[in-house]
Amino acid sequence: MKIGVIGGGQLGRMLALAGTPLGMDFAFLDPAPDACAAALGKHLRADYGDQEHLRQLADQVDLVTFEFESVPAETVAFLSQFVPVYPSAEALRIARDRLFEKSMFRDLGIPTPAFADILSQADLDAAVASIGLPAVLKTRTLGYDGKGQKVLRTPEDVVGTFAELGSVPCLLEGFVPFTGEVSLVAVRARDGETRFYPLVHNTHESGILRLSVASEGHPLQSLAEDYVGRVLKQLDYVGVMAFEFFEVDGGLKANEIAPRVHNSGHWTIEGAECSQFENHLRAVAGLPLGSTAKVGQSAMLNFIGEVPAVEQVVAIDDCHLHHYGKAFKAGRKVGHATLRSNDMATLKARIAEVEALISN
Amino acid sequence: MKIGVIGGGQLGRMLALAGTPLGMDFAFLDPAPDACAAALGKHLRADYGDQEHLRQLADQVDLVTFEFESVPAETVAFLSQFVPVYPSAEALRIARDRLFEKSMFRDLGIPTPAFADILSQADLDAAVASIGLPAVLKTRTLGYDGKGQKVLRTPEDVVGTFAELGSVPCLLEGFVPFTGEVSLVAVRARDGETRFYPLVHNTHESGILRLSVASEGHPLQSLAEDYVGRVLKQLDYVGVMAFEFFEVDGGLKANEIAPRVHNSGHWTIEGAECSQFENHLRAVAGLPLGSTAKVGQSAMLNFIGEVPAVEQVVAIDDCHLHHYGKAFKAGRKVGHATLRSNDMATLKARIAEVEALISN
Repeated sequence: MKIGVIGGGQLGRMLALAGTPLGMDFAFLDPAPDACAAALGKHLRADYGDQEHLRQLADQVDLVTFEFESVPAETVAFLSQFVPVYPSAEALRIARDRLFEKSMFRDLGIPTPAFADILSQADLDAAVASIGLPAVLKTRTLGYDGKGQKVLRTPEDVVGTFAELGSVPCLLEGFVPFTGEVSLVAVRARDGETRFYPLVHNTHESGILRLSVASEGHPLQSLAEDYVGRVLKQLDYVGVMAFEFFEVDGGLKANEIAPRVHNSGHWTIEGAECSQFENHLRAVAGLPLGSTAKVGQSAMLNFIGEVPAVEQVVAIDDCHLHHYGKAFKAGRKVGHATLRSNDMATLKARIAEVEALISN
Repeated sequence: MKIGVIGGGQLGRMLALAGTPLGMDFAFLDPAPDACAAALGKHLRADYGDQEHLRQLADQVDLVTFEFESVPAETVAFLSQFVPVYPSAEALRIARDRLFEKSMFRDLGIPTPAFADILSQADLDAAVASIGLPAVLKTRTLGYDGKGQKVLRTPEDVVGTFAELGSVPCLLEGFVPFTGEVSLVAVRARDGETRFYPLVHNTHESGILRLSVASEGHPLQSLAEDYVGRVLKQLDYVGVMAFEFFEVDGGLKANEIAPRVHNSGHWTIEGAECSQFENHLRAVAGLPLGSTAKVGQSAMLNFIGEVPAVEQVVAIDDCHLHHYGKAFKAGRKVGHATLRSNDMATLKARIAEVEALISN
């Protein structure tokens, strides 16, 4: 089976590493000359709206999937004429726009922070008066890793902020006094079968995920599965989806969904019986889903800006390096390490060892 | 780091799958137009003796390794002028010739079946008189998967057999009444550090490996490690080596070594903390070795001739498919499945499920 992937970054690379043993071949459409997935498949170097190359891709593959959600709607619609596309155009339409996303959560009875649609500075002023400060103004589309957003703490922060974010449609979200951030990675098959990985505790710095630790018997697991299940069913979703939540007062408030394999699920490569990458491919290819059970205790640490010396990373016991083969650049995710241990105490000691390497 | 591999079959393919996350790039030299490792790296399509392409390979990579042992000595010698080559020319010289191999075992005090060098039918007749029947006549070089050998049971089997195997140098080996076949996969680093995976029980059919089951606390583990350690040290070996033994009377008799990653170590991809493929690359690249500890109970079943329907293989719980992307052909290894379970009873049930697929 030949899989087309829109985007050729590290997620595409890890999809190919998972899918090749299933007998799959890969083709990536990505405008970047140095797309790091290209080492593992065919690289069609073209813009995401380039219909000639999209058509070429469609002609070469059995289905198309995505490694990021900001794909133009026209691209999805165009591809869908020629080849099955998973997840669906509708799932991408919702996930790429924070207003649609939050509105869907609300309609499905999933708690969210207070939010308001912002199309002008006047909208922003009115929403701040209603929701209060602190609050976070986010562009409705194209934000990631903390980009395209601004925390508003004082009335002075509000002045001129709509223009500062580019005078594009935004969402204002009430600030949530969360005690933790967790994510649930789920996979849904074409026939509707759904499986969930254990909830993951995430730690961000400057808006970028730093550390994910897979939980064991988390008290909010079944609540999170209920919420995510509602969204998956609503969208008749096919593939892996990650759902980020804030932990607030012993409950959950929905932050956002990612309609794709997700950074907070990278630990599943070594830490779960079947990884999120393999399960995404199984789902979109119409194959039976794999086990989402944990194998021991696991954590993932991102390497941001640079990967520490390989010999130092792999010298740490039970440490699995994932080097993305990308040029190093401040703020860029260029690799990660998975730790897998038989018990949590050992895992914590190993996390400290990797953290010591990162801070050096 | 860029790794050159002589041979582009499934072993090269799995090396690339293991090495890509370490930030390694791969180039394969293989004359086959459809070399299945080529999906994961650069393919230099040339004969193994083609010095122009060998030189090209050497110029592009930081080191060269092998996925099979029948590489011409001249190829190794030629490459070694330009680039580090692991394992060494000496290790390959010994391993590719059954006489050199068995003689080394004897010199190191490692028990072997009785054996004799056979350069003519007269040699064979004399050796049969001395060693007795049954016995096995094997070509000294180029044998694999039961090819290039003949079991001699009666005096009639001996007549004309030297010519039947091509009148090439052979080894006669006394038949060993073994109770089981086990292999030990080991890895030795450039600095001499050595690690061993657990002993593996192997079942062959028609000379081809069918099933490998990783053992737990095998009573012969330390004896096997002692024997394999002697060989690794003698050869100043760098990389993964597999050592096949016969279990005889509660002890071990050496069958043969493979100076490379080995089919009986494929279970380590899911079943050990660090796979044989990653450990081979770590060793040849001068990196610290990874843990050879088992993660639960594991087994590997080969798919020979054809891979069963993918949807049936992955429908088996905890079953990991490794499809080599090769054309199906009777007697050809075209894939395998790894099973990983938390207990041996579950593992055995899963093995039966995969076996049922194979026999269908």
